[in-house]
Amino acid sequence: MSGTLYGLGVGPGDPELITLKALRLLRSSPVVAYPAPEHGDSLARAIVASHLPGGQTEVAIRMPMVVERFPAREVYDRAAIELGGHLEDGRDVAVLCEGDPFFYGSFMYLFGRMAERFPVQVVPGVSSLTACAASLGAPLAARNDVLTVLPAPLPAETLRDRLLATDAAAIMKLGRHFAKVRDVLEELGLAGSARYIERATMENQRLLRLDEVDADAVPYFSMVLVHRRGEAWS
Amino acid sequence: MSGTLYGLGVGPGDPELITLKALRLLRSSPVVAYPAPEHGDSLARAIVASHLPGGQTEVAIRMPMVVERFPAREVYDRAAIELGGHLEDGRDVAVLCEGDPFFYGSFMYLFGRMAERFPVQVVPGVSSLTACAASLGAPLAARNDVLTVLPAPLPAETLRDRLLATDAAAIMKLGRHFAKVRDVLEELGLAGSARYIERATMENQRLLRLDEVDADAVPYFSMVLVHRRGEAWS
Ligand SMILES: C[S@@+](CC[C@H](N)C(=O)[O-])C[C@H]1O[C@@H](n2cnc3c(N)ncnc32)[C@H](O)[C@@H]1O
Ligand SMILES: C[S@@+](CC[C@H](N)C(=O)[O-])C[C@H]1O[C@@H](n2cnc3c(N)ncnc32)[C@H](O)[C@@H]1O
Repeated sequence: MSGTLYGLGVGPGDPELITLKALRLLRSSPVVAYPAPEHGDSLARAIVASHLPGGQTEVAIRMPMVVERFPAREVYDRAAIELGGHLEDGRDVAVLCEGDPFFYGSFMYLFGRMAERFPVQVVPGVSSLTACAASLGAPLAARNDVLTVLPAPLPAETLRDRLLATDAAAIMKLGRHFAKVRDVLEELGLAGSARYIERATMENQRLLRLDEVDADAVPYFSMVLVHRRGEAWS
Repeated sequence: MSGTLYGLGVGPGDPELITLKALRLLRSSPVVAYPAPEHGDSLARAIVASHLPGGQTEVAIRMPMVVERFPAREVYDRAAIELGGHLEDGRDVAVLCEGDPFFYGSFMYLFGRMAERFPVQVVPGVSSLTACAASLGAPLAARNDVLTVLPAPLPAETLRDRLLATDAAAIMKLGRHFAKVRDVLEELGLAGSARYIERATMENQRLLRLDEVDADAVPYFSMVLVHRRGEAWS
């Protein structure tokens, strides 16, 4: 009997934002895997560190740091082989995923490689999308609003066109793309109502107006939320 | 000292998909409020029923059943007054929200009425967006994909235009709008790859291909996910 591969959403940062289901499967899986940088600590592992019972086999999936890299195929190929070995030997494997596994998460690269050969179960988690809205006190969308999620690396024209055709938007993966995003929002008259947040629900969370943000110091874990209709929630 | 109003995301249906934080605040709040139909049970309350310690004051916010109604202002006005009374007397109030409170949730109507007068804290939850993707085994979006959330009551032309300008989409609030949505997806050549799910993570969850769905029996708690690029997750 093969083990099951679990993709566990562990939430956006606050260890208390994990679900009961993810916590149960995290604790009962003999093998725990997580993405990690080439050197240093894994954010996904840090989120659940206080929940780990100890005594589990840990597999860090280390990704060489290349800005804007396409996912490194060989890293996932090798990880799939290593995790597949555990599953073949009958051990369940829990893969930790920051936020939700299927919301722009790297879990899908393991999923694509392993779902045909092994039982896979995805446990949805609180995504950064709703966590950022909660921390900002800013409803994402209501009624028949169109809500668009935009990765900031897209060209300025694409961002502009998509923002013109939506009621609400979340702009992710800001980092060094922040200035471009701010310029587009200013051009559209949306900069004043847009809200910026970094490291939502983590200890060093920060909320800022766009004009307070230092464009040269925007971290990867940040987001801008914008709503064209303002805040007439009534 | 006034109490705090908590908007608690209780997740999409499976009682195990509540977060530790929402569970803690649910159990410690002397007053628990939830949306409910005019007659009958509240879904949000049913999701957490097994977690309730007993002995709490319960407030059902009952909404007259009108198809496609605009939110009934008076119902929320009255609920804000009733819950405000508890807060003024120093009692915390937990408002239960199916999925996430700020993702198309009715909590924002209380938030809009009460956030200026009382301390409000929103606890994000697992939304139906990521829960449906997990149950379907279908990644929502990757890399620089644009992801658009579309309410099905929108006109067919709007749905068509927005679908043409996105990589991935989630179409919500299907109900009697299902046939329109299916026709638009067929016209765009997307019907074959689209996936339909109803009551994700609940006991009576169903996953179907679009051509298997009976358009006359589509419940409100259903969603279609579609990805233009198919599933080359590698
Ligand atoms: C590769 S995506 C992963 C998203 C994750 N799977 C989720 O469900 O939230 C990384 C992007 O998510 C956003 N993000 C994730 N966690 C965040 C947080 N705690 N605060 C702000 N943004 C966050 C940022 O925009 C970041 O660039
Ligand atoms: C008013 S919105 C509320 C969404 C909720 N706040 C959330 O975060 O998921 C209701 C719509 O959400 C979707 N939905 C909510 N729960 C669902 C579930 N368990 N399965 C499928 N769709 C669901 C359906 O499209 C439904 O029409």
